[in-house]
Amino acid sequence: MQLNDPAVWTARYRAVREHSLALAAPLSDEDCGAQSMPDASPIKWHLAHTTWFFETFILEAMEPGFAPFHPAFRVLFNSYYNGVGQKHPRPQRGLLTRPAMAQVRAYRANVDGRIAALVGSGLDADARSRLAALLTLGLQHEQQHQELMLTDVKHLLAQNGLCPEYLAEALPRAASAGALSWLPFEGGLMEVGYDGDGFCFDNELPRHRQFVEPFQLASRLVTNGEFLAFIEAGGYRNAGLWLAEGWDWICAQGFDRPLYWRQDDDGNWCEFTLMGLQPLDPGRPLTHISLFEADAYAHWAGARLPTEGEWEHAARESGVVPGAPPALPHPGGAAGSGALREMFDHCWQWTSSSYAPYPGFRPAAGAIGEYNGKFMVNQYVLRGSSCATPAGHARASYRNFFPAGARWQFAGIRLAR
Amino acid sequence: MQLNDPAVWTARYRAVREHSLALAAPLSDEDCGAQSMPDASPIKWHLAHTTWFFETFILEAMEPGFAPFHPAFRVLFNSYYNGVGQKHPRPQRGLLTRPAMAQVRAYRANVDGRIAALVGSGLDADARSRLAALLTLGLQHEQQHQELMLTDVKHLLAQNGLCPEYLAEALPRAASAGALSWLPFEGGLMEVGYDGDGFCFDNELPRHRQFVEPFQLASRLVTNGEFLAFIEAGGYRNAGLWLAEGWDWICAQGFDRPLYWRQDDDGNWCEFTLMGLQPLDPGRPLTHISLFEADAYAHWAGARLPTEGEWEHAARESGVVPGAPPALPHPGGAAGSGALREMFDHCWQWTSSSYAPYPGFRPAAGAIGEYNGKFMVNQYVLRGSSCATPAGHARASYRNFFPAGARWQFAGIRLAR
Amino acid sequence: MQLNDPAVWTARYRAVREHSLALAAPLSDEDCGAQSMPDASPIKWHLAHTTWFFETFILEAMEPGFAPFHPAFRVLFNSYYNGVGQKHPRPQRGLLTRPAMAQVRAYRANVDGRIAALVGSGLDADARSRLAALLTLGLQHEQQHQELMLTDVKHLLAQNGLCPEYLAEALPRAASAGALSWLPFEGGLMEVGYDGDGFCFDNELPRHRQFVEPFQLASRLVTNGEFLAFIEAGGYRNAGLWLAEGWDWICAQGFDRPLYWRQDDDGNWCEFTLMGLQPLDPGRPLTHISLFEADAYAHWAGARLPTEGEWEHAARESGVVPGAPPALPHPGGAAGSGALREMFDHCWQWTSSSYAPYPGFRPAAGAIGEYNGKFMVNQYVLRGSSCATPAGHARASYRNFFPAGARWQFAGIRLAR
Amino acid sequence: MQLNDPAVWTARYRAVREHSLALAAPLSDEDCGAQSMPDASPIKWHLAHTTWFFETFILEAMEPGFAPFHPAFRVLFNSYYNGVGQKHPRPQRGLLTRPAMAQVRAYRANVDGRIAALVGSGLDADARSRLAALLTLGLQHEQQHQELMLTDVKHLLAQNGLCPEYLAEALPRAASAGALSWLPFEGGLMEVGYDGDGFCFDNELPRHRQFVEPFQLASRLVTNGEFLAFIEAGGYRNAGLWLAEGWDWICAQGFDRPLYWRQDDDGNWCEFTLMGLQPLDPGRPLTHISLFEADAYAHWAGARLPTEGEWEHAARESGVVPGAPPALPHPGGAAGSGALREMFDHCWQWTSSSYAPYPGFRPAAGAIGEYNGKFMVNQYVLRGSSCATPAGHARASYRNFFPAGARWQFAGIRLAR
Repeated sequence: MQLNDPAVWTARYRAVREHSLALAAPLSDEDCGAQSMPDASPIKWHLAHTTWFFETFILEAMEPGFAPFHPAFRVLFNSYYNGVGQKHPRPQRGLLTRPAMAQVRAYRANVDGRIAALVGSGLDADARSRLAALLTLGLQHEQQHQELMLTDVKHLLAQNGLCPEYLAEALPRAASAGALSWLPFEGGLMEVGYDGDGFCFDNELPRHRQFVEPFQLASRLVTNGEFLAFIEAGGYRNAGLWLAEGWDWICAQGFDRPLYWRQDDDGNWCEFTLMGLQPLDPGRPLTHISLFEADAYAHWAGARLPTEGEWEHAARESGVVPGAPPALPHPGGAAGSGALREMFDHCWQWTSSSYAPYPGFRPAAGAIGEYNGKFMVNQYVLRGSSCATPAGHARASYRNFFPAGARWQFAGIRLAR
Repeated sequence: MQLNDPAVWTARYRAVREHSLALAAPLSDEDCGAQSMPDASPIKWHLAHTTWFFETFILEAMEPGFAPFHPAFRVLFNSYYNGVGQKHPRPQRGLLTRPAMAQVRAYRANVDGRIAALVGSGLDADARSRLAALLTLGLQHEQQHQELMLTDVKHLLAQNGLCPEYLAEALPRAASAGALSWLPFEGGLMEVGYDGDGFCFDNELPRHRQFVEPFQLASRLVTNGEFLAFIEAGGYRNAGLWLAEGWDWICAQGFDRPLYWRQDDDGNWCEFTLMGLQPLDPGRPLTHISLFEADAYAHWAGARLPTEGEWEHAARESGVVPGAPPALPHPGGAAGSGALREMFDHCWQWTSSSYAPYPGFRPAAGAIGEYNGKFMVNQYVLRGSSCATPAGHARASYRNFFPAGARWQFAGIRLAR
Repeated sequence: MQLNDPAVWTARYRAVREHSLALAAPLSDEDCGAQSMPDASPIKWHLAHTTWFFETFILEAMEPGFAPFHPAFRVLFNSYYNGVGQKHPRPQRGLLTRPAMAQVRAYRANVDGRIAALVGSGLDADARSRLAALLTLGLQHEQQHQELMLTDVKHLLAQNGLCPEYLAEALPRAASAGALSWLPFEGGLMEVGYDGDGFCFDNELPRHRQFVEPFQLASRLVTNGEFLAFIEAGGYRNAGLWLAEGWDWICAQGFDRPLYWRQDDDGNWCEFTLMGLQPLDPGRPLTHISLFEADAYAHWAGARLPTEGEWEHAARESGVVPGAPPALPHPGGAAGSGALREMFDHCWQWTSSSYAPYPGFRPAAGAIGEYNGKFMVNQYVLRGSSCATPAGHARASYRNFFPAGARWQFAGIRLAR
Repeated sequence: MQLNDPAVWTARYRAVREHSLALAAPLSDEDCGAQSMPDASPIKWHLAHTTWFFETFILEAMEPGFAPFHPAFRVLFNSYYNGVGQKHPRPQRGLLTRPAMAQVRAYRANVDGRIAALVGSGLDADARSRLAALLTLGLQHEQQHQELMLTDVKHLLAQNGLCPEYLAEALPRAASAGALSWLPFEGGLMEVGYDGDGFCFDNELPRHRQFVEPFQLASRLVTNGEFLAFIEAGGYRNAGLWLAEGWDWICAQGFDRPLYWRQDDDGNWCEFTLMGLQPLDPGRPLTHISLFEADAYAHWAGARLPTEGEWEHAARESGVVPGAPPALPHPGGAAGSGALREMFDHCWQWTSSSYAPYPGFRPAAGAIGEYNGKFMVNQYVLRGSSCATPAGHARASYRNFFPAGARWQFAGIRLAR
């Protein structure tokens, strides 16, 4: 991707950057500062860290006479790049009441202006090329954080006894999910990994061959109604359905339902959503479950989770592509079309594949090489995209990854067998 | 104390309540929402909880046609009164981004108006008497939280790499502390506990007899300079000086200095204060140390900590009384007069006395009886008052108490032998 | 105490030392090696550590040409004396499968022989005096460990689903405890602390004056039957009865009964004893409860726990003295005589007094000064003695101490008011 | 495998069972009872649990008039089979001082006799077939525990400051390891998994196709000398070499060397072995490292760890097969022959493959199905066999597995690229 037309780049940059601020718009400065758990970050921190990324990896490398907006921000908003230096402790991001939101907005505006100036400056072809690559990475990085902004603020609001709404909207009842059917795939020796000429992360490369046995994939995601049947059948009390570590984990945590499901005094099930507490809709896709719960459900249903190779193969064979996320940030509501539905735009789908480097994987040189590679242990791959994924960010080769116990992402279940 | 003149009460009430808002004035809404550790609370929570106290213990009991400002606040802002019902989990007070500060201010204004109306209403003598007692307790309670507002916000700001200032003031260098002298007291059978006709907490009663052997008390608090000598003499590395639990604790935590002392790259000592980072002033009183550190220092200095009986006896015998806190919220700067100095207004002083009920102690009936009595285990008494104690709140019989490892209060050392 | 007759000393020494081996006699070498929790130690470790005490504090100081039995034992069997040097980690005492029990027995025999030789050697008067003091301390120390041997092995056997017996004896049903009566004491200015010419620990000194208000003491210990009534009345579910820290603790631990009480499938209560599982005997004294439980029970019963001053005063006034422990190591069974019963020989009695130095307390010089003083924080005093206390070890001024949550000692409740 | 000749079966059974006792022979009963960490078990527990396996899965199913040797053993010696019922808590296996070793030996003899009787009884063909399969599984299971007996007792003895020896033998200095060479493999579509007609575990099935890109494998294991160079080059202090979780882990644990390496006061490196403390032999294979350390070393060496498919492919292609373990239970000393050396008999080799089910994997029905499948999450596969693996237990398709932080197994590093 070349930087031939600065206006195109400037527009693209501005669109992504403004979307981050739009996501924060329904929130007060107070909402933006709090951190509900070490895995989540305050909205303000997301807004600053994504800016730090541009400042550190682009401006510091390429801006003539570079001086940081604020020297301390280098430490405060470094997420995990040991190569860049020290980091503010992750569990204490919620204690950074300074800089204020207003100062973070000023930081964003400052960096945006300097990026625009750099894009518009007379760079040679080589520099233009490097800048294009880094800008693209920075914008993709910001889009990843846009998804986390929604999942993190949802987790924060869920801790509050007032059940506050992020959006004051009613969540309409979904149309029936329709029967689940099993779609057959022949498998064989196939290629896995990105092969287009757009952007992809380093972990999607190199494209390589993988042999896949014949398999079947469920036509749609597991619904709330189906998972409720698992609960009512004693699924959370039957050790035989669970991975040993998962069983120990739900026993220790006392888990007996998805993260945001609640039951009122009359036994009615509700679900906390970004639109506040809503009656549980049996027709919408199940979400906010861990790999352990996904695996136990699959076991109970006489099926299993797909591998990431199977998932990618099915998506390619079927020609399904990402659409637009639903109007409201919650899975379902806009039924997918085609035989293979809901592969994108609703819930990430846990696979049974451990997050590992593809054969021949090479991280980038320098601190930016810490982006993906160093996390390739004890995590599992999720495929697809979710209702919180920004439009244009998803693709069939995309590899999302989380530890087996993570529940605060929009993750759901697609069965295989 | 009677409620004969509503105007007097209204003025007293307003003065205390306005002081809380004045303490929050230098802070942003973001600053007011964060919680730096489970022991500390957000400023916003303090402002709401003190209001909840008036609403729950006065309005709910005495206001005709009582209806709560917001039903959920009963749970959100209950600190520890099991008798009142459920409580929002203490370590998660920083996650309450809603209600917003503006709503908490509205809550305060609403309750203030209803209290004023109640005070001005035609109550009979018995009701007036009950109301006076509860108002007094509520205002004393709010003053306790005013002190915590300063210590909690100091702890919060200290976690921030930007070293933000609560007040943008310079802390002047103190006059020399002067030599420490030992003041003798004869002891004997004396009375301990409150005996005036003003307010006191239930834990200061009943006044009772205690026998005290002859003792000596240091004329002033231990200074930063003296404690620095302890550090430089290896005090934090000499197990023989420490209580066994204290030694295990500093080893496990890696502690080797008071809570807010820092050393720059050149070895110069600084101290984080509410006025930001300041050079360590050797003439000011030492503060922000645990009972363990106080005890080890005393051991090293060939002395010991006083008992609370000794402290109270000395204060009474010497006729020292609380003055006004220093202009800036930090110990020292206004040298006390008299032979026995700094008993009040600078640092609370750790005693060797475990916090226990006085003989014949009776907590109040109902939930308000949880105020003090249920904490009488595994805590130690501190006497005096600090630079953060509101004027008019201290007295010789006052019993402050914290666990032996607490360091975020303005606690210092007065030696005895 | 002088060392005038070596034969007397040798006999006294041998009697105490042999009693330790007698306590281990019902146990296998395997039983003697295990450690059930960090607070408890293996029997083998007790046997070795008490020997280490004689070797380190007597032989090393006084034996001509001293050489250790085994150099590594200095570290392996040091309990907590930082002044002696390094220590094997306390929680890992159960991993010391070497030295074998046989080698520890050899260690004991070796040290016993060398002590006998030293006692019989021609020491001058000053050395004889020092030796007598250290021998006395060493034997008192060993007697303290004899009590721990019983409580520690009880805790170990209680973890085993086989419910093994330490002694294969039946525990007979106790005679009725008789009605509890309240004995009045006038109090006043009295003396506290040891004042005889025999041995006492440093923490019982100096004798000093204390003023005690009039009080009443229960004539006997609280029984199992009385505590069962507390349980059945919901005592463990009523926050209002508990110290705040105690309530949090029982909630976190899920405690709802004394340490060794069990309920079979039919709801019958049993108690694990050193004689194995036995039906709960309502007439025997309650034991194995924490200070938190003792305090909550007292609160429920409309009473309180005594202070240690009250307890000592009552014991002296009433002239009660320790007798012999019961035939079987369990409280009760041999009803005490007199108005004030069961002050000794059955259960230690929690007091409300924090463990603190007496006015003028001075620990011994050197490492042996670590014996008591460094533990004087966050512990509570127990008075009396228990069914596990060796004969001749108890006295009215004796101060036992444990943290408020300790339950594995033979601790019970005597009420005051 | 058929049960045609009972004498053959009886001999095979007796040989394996006697080997377990032989492994315990150098140990005292005390040694056999202790448990050094939750991951390890006491020798006595291994001896009892392997017997429980035969009693539960064979005798209970097939013995006429079955009655258990001791009813409580069903719970005490159940490892992790939820389908069998309750289990004694794993971290408390070291507290089972009863049953005594003598009773466990009696248990073994009893079950051995009953198994022999069952083998010799007149079973029909179907029962013979079932019995053969279960006997084989039981013996393979016991062999797995034989390896754990050595690694667990090594871990126990290593906690003891006396550095006790399991075998009182000198460990001779190894011949030079020779230069490491890179052996090329073409890869391609190959078959993975067991395909012989002997025994294999369910996790080695079904045999299936996998596509492997061309790769190179190191001719031998990484040596102590090579790993020492990594340490001396600052390998444990360079975040850039480590997986993020590994880096956090070594920082939190303070790890800076393999589990059993020690450095004396003069800086000389030693290694704790089953033959006691020995000078570090630079020519022997490195062992007792975690996956994290293996991965960091590979990164530092410009290589990577093999996948389990690559490993199995290389072993098959090269025709290497397990030999006999070394005379002393420590890696190295008997240099393997051939181009590809030390694939078996010295150290298990960490692979980069997460432990996951093969396509079409089906666990056995009933409780025995818990043998392998439920552990297939957050663990990594090790291939080969070690110096502690019993002769006859290893094969090219064998899948060992441990969490990434496990260090107490004989695990080493074979590089790939």
